[in-house]
Amino acid sequence: MPRPKVQVCLSPLLFPEFDVTGKIVVVIDILRATSTICTALYHGVKEVIPVESLKEAQQYKGEQYILAAERGGAKVEGFNYGNSPFEYMAPEVKGKSLVLTTTNGTRAFRLSASADLVIAASFLNMSTVAARLKEEGKDVLCFCAGWRNHFSLEDTLFAGALGNSLRDTHDMDDDEAFSAQTLYNIAETNLEAAVKNSSHYKRLAKQGIEEDIIYCIQPDIVPVLPIYEKNRIISDT
Amino acid sequence: MPRPKVQVCLSPLLFPEFDVTGKIVVVIDILRATSTICTALYHGVKEVIPVESLKEAQQYKGEQYILAAERGGAKVEGFNYGNSPFEYMAPEVKGKSLVLTTTNGTRAFRLSASADLVIAASFLNMSTVAARLKEEGKDVLCFCAGWRNHFSLEDTLFAGALGNSLRDTHDMDDDEAFSAQTLYNIAETNLEAAVKNSSHYKRLAKQGIEEDIIYCIQPDIVPVLPIYEKNRIISDT
Repeated sequence: MPRPKVQVCLSPLLFPEFDVTGKIVVVIDILRATSTICTALYHGVKEVIPVESLKEAQQYKGEQYILAAERGGAKVEGFNYGNSPFEYMAPEVKGKSLVLTTTNGTRAFRLSASADLVIAASFLNMSTVAARLKEEGKDVLCFCAGWRNHFSLEDTLFAGALGNSLRDTHDMDDDEAFSAQTLYNIAETNLEAAVKNSSHYKRLAKQGIEEDIIYCIQPDIVPVLPIYEKNRIISDT
Repeated sequence: MPRPKVQVCLSPLLFPEFDVTGKIVVVIDILRATSTICTALYHGVKEVIPVESLKEAQQYKGEQYILAAERGGAKVEGFNYGNSPFEYMAPEVKGKSLVLTTTNGTRAFRLSASADLVIAASFLNMSTVAARLKEEGKDVLCFCAGWRNHFSLEDTLFAGALGNSLRDTHDMDDDEAFSAQTLYNIAETNLEAAVKNSSHYKRLAKQGIEEDIIYCIQPDIVPVLPIYEKNRIISDT
């Protein structure tokens, strides 16, 4: 029996080139949407509702909702929450529904909806995701959310790290997966330095959120399995 | 004065994200369109007319034209020429106009038309291209033609090699350029092995054109500078 395959999609613009029928899509937006989603669910947020527009977010009214919006790295005026994982460690978010719209990451979930299973992944929950992928044994598409449709180094590095951790059970199917793994193999010994080379880091560092970045590259500190279904993300662990 | 920048576009689908006004676009399709174009011009072809469709190619009639078409790696039935560089070393092509349509590479030229200068590049003429880019001193976009809109390892490796050779004069501007250079730095000592890891190589090797591939990764054996203007490519050296 052939082993399941791992492919990597480097940008949302390339996503239509992949057929995800029968596959598992792993959505990756390391800085910071999927890192924040993992953190929020781990700290007791009931569910995350990813939406594309600010207008759509504002339609959710009521005490049970936390409205969060980020554009270009910054919290959007008029919203109480942004895209920093640290905002979702507070006790007041427990049990709430987090309505989240970000520049890059949240759109990727809707694009992935036709896959068999859609998982939000980050360094923070990588081993939990890898374990589930091995258990499922299906083909995997790592979907890098990127930055404004561009390739993003930190997302690609994560795709490589995840691919590495699936070596015993899955085959790398395309040049993207091979390249992501090669890049990760070089970066592995000093991931912080590698991520600091990314243009996304340089943009965010200017906004004083270096702490977020250091947080987002820690391995396996929030062992949750965020699953996207019926337009919301819930923890499956 | 800021140094000129090098960016890398990893797929034709990503090209609309780049503004090429005032820039130089370097079109890269190592296996094999730009390698073949360089070879043909070096061996005396008068000009290369890149066209997108088979139908468009067939509209060129007359003794002065050589009609060449490749799809999926193979020569198209009804055409006398394909996309192998070896076909264009023969004396009978001298002085002729080569009308060429290929799966990936030829489309990239038309997409690039609004740039200040469009150059066809390959390992075969890399130093000639690099020298011209240094002389011009403008921002550069390396446009990887890819494979059916996908990222292509060998094109990305070449973008990294070209970026490397511009280190003294240009800055790497984006994560793509940084990654391409990193991948090339690893591949450099055994480029043949690296290219043999590419999915494009595996596809073409099945078609018995391994010799073409070995030919296409030789450095600087056809020192031409193919310039695209007014819908045709001519040698500027």
